[in-house]
Amino acid sequence: MASPVNPPRGMRDFLPADKARRERILSVIRATYRAHGFDEIETPVVEDSSRLHAGLGGDNEKLAYAVMKRGLTLDDLHAATDPLDLADLGLRFDLTVPLARFYATHRAELPTVFRAIQIAPVWRAERPQKGRYRQFIQCDIDIIGEAGPIAELELITATTAALDALGLSGCTVRINDRRLLTSSLTILGFAPAEQDAALITIDKLDKLGQEGVIAELRERAFTPAAVDALEEFFRRPMTMEHLPFAEAAIRTFLPEGADPVAIAELAAIGEAVNEAAAGEVVVFDPWLVRGMGYYTGTIFEVAHPELGYSIGGGGRYDGMIGRFLGTDIPAAGFSLGFERLVDLVDVPGPDAADAVALLHDADVPLTRLASLQSALVAQGLRVRLERKPRNLAPLFAQLAASGFGRVATVTAESTVESLEFRPLG
Amino acid sequence: MASPVNPPRGMRDFLPADKARRERILSVIRATYRAHGFDEIETPVVEDSSRLHAGLGGDNEKLAYAVMKRGLTLDDLHAATDPLDLADLGLRFDLTVPLARFYATHRAELPTVFRAIQIAPVWRAERPQKGRYRQFIQCDIDIIGEAGPIAELELITATTAALDALGLSGCTVRINDRRLLTSSLTILGFAPAEQDAALITIDKLDKLGQEGVIAELRERAFTPAAVDALEEFFRRPMTMEHLPFAEAAIRTFLPEGADPVAIAELAAIGEAVNEAAAGEVVVFDPWLVRGMGYYTGTIFEVAHPELGYSIGGGGRYDGMIGRFLGTDIPAAGFSLGFERLVDLVDVPGPDAADAVALLHDADVPLTRLASLQSALVAQGLRVRLERKPRNLAPLFAQLAASGFGRVATVTAESTVESLEFRPLG
Repeated sequence: MASPVNPPRGMRDFLPADKARRERILSVIRATYRAHGFDEIETPVVEDSSRLHAGLGGDNEKLAYAVMKRGLTLDDLHAATDPLDLADLGLRFDLTVPLARFYATHRAELPTVFRAIQIAPVWRAERPQKGRYRQFIQCDIDIIGEAGPIAELELITATTAALDALGLSGCTVRINDRRLLTSSLTILGFAPAEQDAALITIDKLDKLGQEGVIAELRERAFTPAAVDALEEFFRRPMTMEHLPFAEAAIRTFLPEGADPVAIAELAAIGEAVNEAAAGEVVVFDPWLVRGMGYYTGTIFEVAHPELGYSIGGGGRYDGMIGRFLGTDIPAAGFSLGFERLVDLVDVPGPDAADAVALLHDADVPLTRLASLQSALVAQGLRVRLERKPRNLAPLFAQLAASGFGRVATVTAESTVESLEFRPLG
Repeated sequence: MASPVNPPRGMRDFLPADKARRERILSVIRATYRAHGFDEIETPVVEDSSRLHAGLGGDNEKLAYAVMKRGLTLDDLHAATDPLDLADLGLRFDLTVPLARFYATHRAELPTVFRAIQIAPVWRAERPQKGRYRQFIQCDIDIIGEAGPIAELELITATTAALDALGLSGCTVRINDRRLLTSSLTILGFAPAEQDAALITIDKLDKLGQEGVIAELRERAFTPAAVDALEEFFRRPMTMEHLPFAEAAIRTFLPEGADPVAIAELAAIGEAVNEAAAGEVVVFDPWLVRGMGYYTGTIFEVAHPELGYSIGGGGRYDGMIGRFLGTDIPAAGFSLGFERLVDLVDVPGPDAADAVALLHDADVPLTRLASLQSALVAQGLRVRLERKPRNLAPLFAQLAASGFGRVATVTAESTVESLEFRPLG
């Protein structure tokens, strides 16, 4: 017996039942996005190393798997001054850098407003830990070329529709705007140079609580008066849950004078989504930050009330898509955390009664088996041929696990009409 | 304007229309394989370098993309004695090595006879050329754990059913058996040590013709009497087209005394498939070789009569799946060349009339747009919101290319009932 054989560290195989379940869930997401007018695209799993390391990926760039140049000699190895000198490609760590590259390559062939679906794996060389994988699926939708809030409206509508279709009704989208964070911090007295760092701490509000955030800000020596002002400010309610979404409501959560354009856009998005959904889908959260530094406007996160964590997020990132083009292109996107979703929901599979196993002895001619299978497949059934084992129980358990619901015994004389199907087990 | 931005050399992006077409074709293949009792699995795109280079991949091992270890130092680079020392993973170059690894990992959880579908990309660092890509999809089915000819029967039936479903009716499967090649060459007088090399030349029969093959064998100094015997033997017909598939028929194409077990199994497979299909699907080809050295029994190739090249192939490879387990496991597989297929066939997309665009001016409230879209999606339509441009023609061309068939103009007063849909263009 050889030593245990496993997939690469931090990566997973999917056995039939799991693979089928994942694909069913992906189909629902894909179909919902398509129904909302988005189009699926695909890019290679690798990108040129220089593009992956162009500064668009933030900390994820450090987690990229590097693909070695082909035909390297020992001289090349010894002459290298950086391991990355030896790599010309890398596995993508997200779907946004490839989208920016794709858009730069194909802009002339794409619609003026381009709505992209990308459902595909990405790779990150993270320390393996429970629930975190080195290869995992991302489900992204992006709207490129639309500067107005209708982009956010479409993204939020399509995403919540996908979650509804998966049976995760009642999700809430918390929404904020980077411009409001900046303007609020400025009004509270944070110097422009300390705002990014302050946001990193404020982003831990869920984890540290208000007191923890204030303590960390003090410890890190941010402008004391600004921290005091923030502490005072935290006494206001944190989200507008159960308030109608409107400019006036948003304003009550913000310091006097916060960016009026951002407030108007947020209100337009929230009102429209909530009215169309006839429910409180979107909620303003003045302290939602989102980690990635590339956001330039609205940011959002979606969560289910019964879950303590977000299952997706996104925002507007106008500076990024045009980077490889050397021009500015408005863009916004929403990404669902598929690996979290897949543990939460299920989509019913096909009816087990439509999947049948034909049990046969060794003396049944192959021709008979082939004919019966073809005839039953033509009737729309899923048909598996199985040699009849001595002990039926293990086979039946395997068949049930594969979604088979009925079984019939085949003899040398069997015809389609003479087969007697019985339920499994 | 930045310089042109392209996907990595030899790799492709898929734009919406292409991506949709590819997915439709893959769905048909997947559904047909499932209907014939196969189950889809998935493995990571990378495998441990040591497994990729274990000798199961033949020449393809040399084409593997190597993934660099993380955290390498310059000392590591300078101490390396082989570039592969710096790699711990590699992108898979086929789906068979991963299947062998998967089976070794999960055997205890899999059915006794395991029918696997793998539809997934593989990577080969080949010199880019027309029609040959560095990332491409393979569609493999494999049956593991079944030593008898029923495995080949199922593989051939499922594969030809998939081709039928794609509208490529009338495909022919040429079939042979490695054991017959060996026994025929032995009978003709080739020494065991020269048989593999002789088969490499014989494999070029399509390209060189019989005279070319004989000339090359003479030039390469194979046993002269054996080459003479082969030349004589080539005067027989090359395939049994239009002969009923039976042991006696097969024997007329082979030297006296060729392996009787292999003949009986081939006859059983061919008879069963042809009878069930009521047609001449399988044809015996005594000089079919197939490149890969790992085949141990039957080998097959499928072609369409109107095409000069094969669109898939496979065979029995009993020695391979068990390699990582350290035990022998019978196995056979059939692989479709998806990138060739996709240029040959199409599957109709959804009805364009069910995809509608809503043209709106800037003064239509977002709420109205969101409500209309949701209501129409709920009716089963695909709905895209489009800001009304000055010039409709380019937008309509883009919509038509994306599969949209109808359009309606939305005003601030529009309701679902008041929308007037008209055909595009």
